[in-house]
Amino acid sequence: MNVVLKIGGSILFENGRINADRISKFVTLIKQLRDEGHSVAVVVGGGAPAREYSKVARELGASYTIQDKLGIEASRMNARLFQSAFDNAYPNPPTSFDELQVALSTHDLVFVGGIQPGQSTNAVAALVAELTRADWLFNCSNIDYVYDKDPSKNPDAVPFDKLGYSQFIDIVNTLEQKPSGYALFDLVGAKIVQRSKVKLCFVNGEDPQNVVMVLKGENKGTVVYDE
Amino acid sequence: MNVVLKIGGSILFENGRINADRISKFVTLIKQLRDEGHSVAVVVGGGAPAREYSKVARELGASYTIQDKLGIEASRMNARLFQSAFDNAYPNPPTSFDELQVALSTHDLVFVGGIQPGQSTNAVAALVAELTRADWLFNCSNIDYVYDKDPSKNPDAVPFDKLGYSQFIDIVNTLEQKPSGYALFDLVGAKIVQRSKVKLCFVNGEDPQNVVMVLKGENKGTVVYDE
Amino acid sequence: MNVVLKIGGSILFENGRINADRISKFVTLIKQLRDEGHSVAVVVGGGAPAREYSKVARELGASYTIQDKLGIEASRMNARLFQSAFDNAYPNPPTSFDELQVALSTHDLVFVGGIQPGQSTNAVAALVAELTRADWLFNCSNIDYVYDKDPSKNPDAVPFDKLGYSQFIDIVNTLEQKPSGYALFDLVGAKIVQRSKVKLCFVNGEDPQNVVMVLKGENKGTVVYDE
Amino acid sequence: MNVVLKIGGSILFENGRINADRISKFVTLIKQLRDEGHSVAVVVGGGAPAREYSKVARELGASYTIQDKLGIEASRMNARLFQSAFDNAYPNPPTSFDELQVALSTHDLVFVGGIQPGQSTNAVAALVAELTRADWLFNCSNIDYVYDKDPSKNPDAVPFDKLGYSQFIDIVNTLEQKPSGYALFDLVGAKIVQRSKVKLCFVNGEDPQNVVMVLKGENKGTVVYDE
Amino acid sequence: MNVVLKIGGSILFENGRINADRISKFVTLIKQLRDEGHSVAVVVGGGAPAREYSKVARELGASYTIQDKLGIEASRMNARLFQSAFDNAYPNPPTSFDELQVALSTHDLVFVGGIQPGQSTNAVAALVAELTRADWLFNCSNIDYVYDKDPSKNPDAVPFDKLGYSQFIDIVNTLEQKPSGYALFDLVGAKIVQRSKVKLCFVNGEDPQNVVMVLKGENKGTVVYDE
Amino acid sequence: MNVVLKIGGSILFENGRINADRISKFVTLIKQLRDEGHSVAVVVGGGAPAREYSKVARELGASYTIQDKLGIEASRMNARLFQSAFDNAYPNPPTSFDELQVALSTHDLVFVGGIQPGQSTNAVAALVAELTRADWLFNCSNIDYVYDKDPSKNPDAVPFDKLGYSQFIDIVNTLEQKPSGYALFDLVGAKIVQRSKVKLCFVNGEDPQNVVMVLKGENKGTVVYDE
Repeated sequence: MNVVLKIGGSILFENGRINADRISKFVTLIKQLRDEGHSVAVVVGGGAPAREYSKVARELGASYTIQDKLGIEASRMNARLFQSAFDNAYPNPPTSFDELQVALSTHDLVFVGGIQPGQSTNAVAALVAELTRADWLFNCSNIDYVYDKDPSKNPDAVPFDKLGYSQFIDIVNTLEQKPSGYALFDLVGAKIVQRSKVKLCFVNGEDPQNVVMVLKGENKGTVVYDE
Repeated sequence: MNVVLKIGGSILFENGRINADRISKFVTLIKQLRDEGHSVAVVVGGGAPAREYSKVARELGASYTIQDKLGIEASRMNARLFQSAFDNAYPNPPTSFDELQVALSTHDLVFVGGIQPGQSTNAVAALVAELTRADWLFNCSNIDYVYDKDPSKNPDAVPFDKLGYSQFIDIVNTLEQKPSGYALFDLVGAKIVQRSKVKLCFVNGEDPQNVVMVLKGENKGTVVYDE
Repeated sequence: MNVVLKIGGSILFENGRINADRISKFVTLIKQLRDEGHSVAVVVGGGAPAREYSKVARELGASYTIQDKLGIEASRMNARLFQSAFDNAYPNPPTSFDELQVALSTHDLVFVGGIQPGQSTNAVAALVAELTRADWLFNCSNIDYVYDKDPSKNPDAVPFDKLGYSQFIDIVNTLEQKPSGYALFDLVGAKIVQRSKVKLCFVNGEDPQNVVMVLKGENKGTVVYDE
Repeated sequence: MNVVLKIGGSILFENGRINADRISKFVTLIKQLRDEGHSVAVVVGGGAPAREYSKVARELGASYTIQDKLGIEASRMNARLFQSAFDNAYPNPPTSFDELQVALSTHDLVFVGGIQPGQSTNAVAALVAELTRADWLFNCSNIDYVYDKDPSKNPDAVPFDKLGYSQFIDIVNTLEQKPSGYALFDLVGAKIVQRSKVKLCFVNGEDPQNVVMVLKGENKGTVVYDE
Repeated sequence: MNVVLKIGGSILFENGRINADRISKFVTLIKQLRDEGHSVAVVVGGGAPAREYSKVARELGASYTIQDKLGIEASRMNARLFQSAFDNAYPNPPTSFDELQVALSTHDLVFVGGIQPGQSTNAVAALVAELTRADWLFNCSNIDYVYDKDPSKNPDAVPFDKLGYSQFIDIVNTLEQKPSGYALFDLVGAKIVQRSKVKLCFVNGEDPQNVVMVLKGENKGTVVYDE
Repeated sequence: MNVVLKIGGSILFENGRINADRISKFVTLIKQLRDEGHSVAVVVGGGAPAREYSKVARELGASYTIQDKLGIEASRMNARLFQSAFDNAYPNPPTSFDELQVALSTHDLVFVGGIQPGQSTNAVAALVAELTRADWLFNCSNIDYVYDKDPSKNPDAVPFDKLGYSQFIDIVNTLEQKPSGYALFDLVGAKIVQRSKVKLCFVNGEDPQNVVMVLKGENKGTVVYDE
């Protein structure tokens, strides 16, 4: 199978430092998936360094685009860290779409960070899933489910086991409209997932084995799909 | 001044053929702007060939991402056509954000097409405007104004002379939610324009001199800005 | 076997529009060749868009080199259209000889357009054939045979089943000397084919299955070779 | 004048976080130097993130080369942070020597990180100085002077105002031979400085204005030069 | 003025060694031209190393294309040698047409070797002349004039002061048809020169000052041009 | 096994001309190693052309960095000559570390020259060995053994069969300190070999079969290793 993992930057850092243990567990997961014969593409977020470098750039007078660029570079650093654990992966995070395509066409293990300002790593993950006709796109972050509203502010937020694409887009859209919207996924990415009918699964990445459990058919997290 | 022109593909073609006269008028406009000392960046849309190549690719079984890619290549062809009229422009449409930055840092006349699937040429134009701290971003298409709804379907649609950013984003958002929404601008681009407070002006590109008139202070089309 | 297909732009367009049916038949041919275990490199011409973009560029004052460049870009668009039908091809038409070599060394299915002004896609096809030590180079255009003179103007033109390289070069050379010479092949390409003793076969590409028939040993079109 | 600044990673971070104030002061220095008409190339070290990413890569089983590569990427992140404060600098830290040369030939403000494993950022700074025939190479770190031995371990270490190249190389060499040698400069870089007779000045970068004082003729830090 | 110099490899080597004195004289010429305000592009041939490396490659079983490639690399080495004398030239010989265009658009001193197999450095020089709308293309080799036949074999060969383009193409064509034809210029290059009406001048490069004399209006060598 | 061969430029040339016979013997060796299933990376030195081009560049006033660059280009020419004998090698000598990594990750036969000024081809070979976790790094030059001092000047120099890394580094270091030190290996490379525990073997490359004999367990040359 073709599997795309989106690993949120939030779960790779703790108090501004790399969470080496967490990364190690994801490395184990990826080796497992590869041993089982899957092609794996991994899109990694920026996390704490992305925020820190962007913040200082803003103070130095950089435009938002350049701040985004620094966040992207931070996500590529994180992608490189994962690459460093594998001798057979494509060796650099692609810096253009053309390079991304070459990487995916020559290696069945590719690590990607952000590619371009104005496009989130969730959108990149959706593009990679579409391009590789992936069977699954896993969004690994620090949430257990997609909820109907921000669970950190609404104790009565309802988690979903399953969601259709339109329902999911409605939720993403609602969140995006609010300044306080939590960063679940972005609208561009959601629409790409919908148009390509990629099976998108939100799992808690604090335990990367959740991905294996979903692949084995267990119910974990929220699956977005139209049956 | 730093001026960004977004030239919609729709006004560059007529019955599937290049509208050479229209292009020639834009070339005249760009030369005028340059003679007056402005730095100019031009982002060009894909138009009829973008649609035609994408359509055939779809029939051949290409993924949406690859269809988008063909549309992007078509927009770059159009950008090259404009380049061909100038001996002093950056000679190739950038194919990555890094190359775009290099081009903008070495030339004060740059032509750009699309850069990456999942990102419209309107979003690219907004990024270029942000990156160059542009004074104006002109969106040149076949409409005279931004209306409160699709004027082709609503005879009572009301045109705007001026719009605040939030109002403008509401309109773009409403259009994006409808399957029948006409392609005014995209949400990502609109938000970039807002965050950087770029003065965005919608003018009818059938007469490119409208741009000059706006720069001279005349009321033409719709200006999006927060006073 | 290593097979190089040169697909002339002329047979990919009809009245300025893409001939989707023709392209689809070539896609079928290429899949057949691949299923039979052949490595395939395809060099695609520019056709109608090449002429149209070049013509407008000329009107805008572009140099001949730049006009050629636009024609090359158009041929790359066509190469991309073919690429879009295959998930396992090298993903971009090479833009330099170095990239061409990398593509041929990592993929056994590569689509190429023109590479550089001053060099026709026939010459590129001959170089690719030489580089891959190809068993066959098929020139697929809208002619059935190589004739001793331009058949459209000479009802008594004699078609050839077979031609030695020197004879072939004489014909190409005679054609090149006349302003009205029809575009059979170019001299540089012909000499490359001769020096490397590549078997060159001209077949009518309106029915791509002609290629299969020649590979099966049937007499179709004109074979250029020294026994 | 052509001035090269080597800014040690050590003074850009404090407790693992970016020292925004320090960076801001260097930005001020660079703007001053530019206002006075100097061409400036800046080579930035990796600092805390270089160490942190390398350490985790080592735990993940990466080779030393790959650990070095991560350190280099971290130094490029830092170079990007400086770039973000200037709209007219070369926009990306060069990733190859060829790109470095292009950058230096098109911009008179260039920010560089490490380029390649096996070569320290001090060696890169020496190469940049040689390539630009720099008048001064300033090594800005947290030391006030070059000493005859490691001052943190030898209370009787003697600081130098001036050093000849051979003397300097002897010191660097002695330090390199000891496992406990402090990272003053590396041997390759020292020899490059010697062969090109670049004036190398060690100043305390905690106050970047020290550079200005040296340029004004004041005695600050240690100057390595043969009179 | 825009001046293109084609420096034949034959005059850069003597008995297989670099003719440093000759190169030094060309460097002086180029500095003179630059001091007089001309933009200069220089295309350099391969000479003895091109032949030597190609010959060994042939013995090792390389295809003709690869042999050509080695000759091209040798011409780039020679171009680099010229570059090494100038701090303000574009720093690398372009390896693709896209890079050539960028180089010419950012620097008014560019050194070029061959670019691609199947295309001589004379053709490259003609393209560069066309692209830069050059006033003069000087072909500097070891001949004093263009003759009506090979002067080394025909004591009665007649030299030309002037030639029209068609006459010139006839001569080039006649030479190309003979296996013993001496390498005056190639047909592709000749046709590019004709279509763009570039003034092409053959001068003896053993004394590079001949170029200056022609620019001053003296009669030296053969000028190809249509009045 | 992963085998890295460093072929010194000194043994590839004789009286300034390519030693075709020697190269041919190395090609035979490499084919043997490949037939036996080994992955092979070859790092080639610059030899006579490196010295000749650098010397002329120095006379033309080039900086040392640029002189080094010419030497690197010469080593790449030599690497290309080896490439020309193989249809399945990575087709170009990498010009950056990123490209080197891509080459090694897509091909199990890669030819490399120098990469960057300030870094010898011995250091590059050590990096390649580290990166590929090579079992052996063979240094093929015109010496039979590592001696305790320069054997050409010391008739009593003692050859080593075996050396520990520290001992070896002491020898390299002593040689580097003397202006007359012969070019055995460089310090940076030696330290890389030590840190990665690559088995480094010095053999006389005048007979490349020595490499095979060492792989078969025979005693030839000097092995540097810590047991």
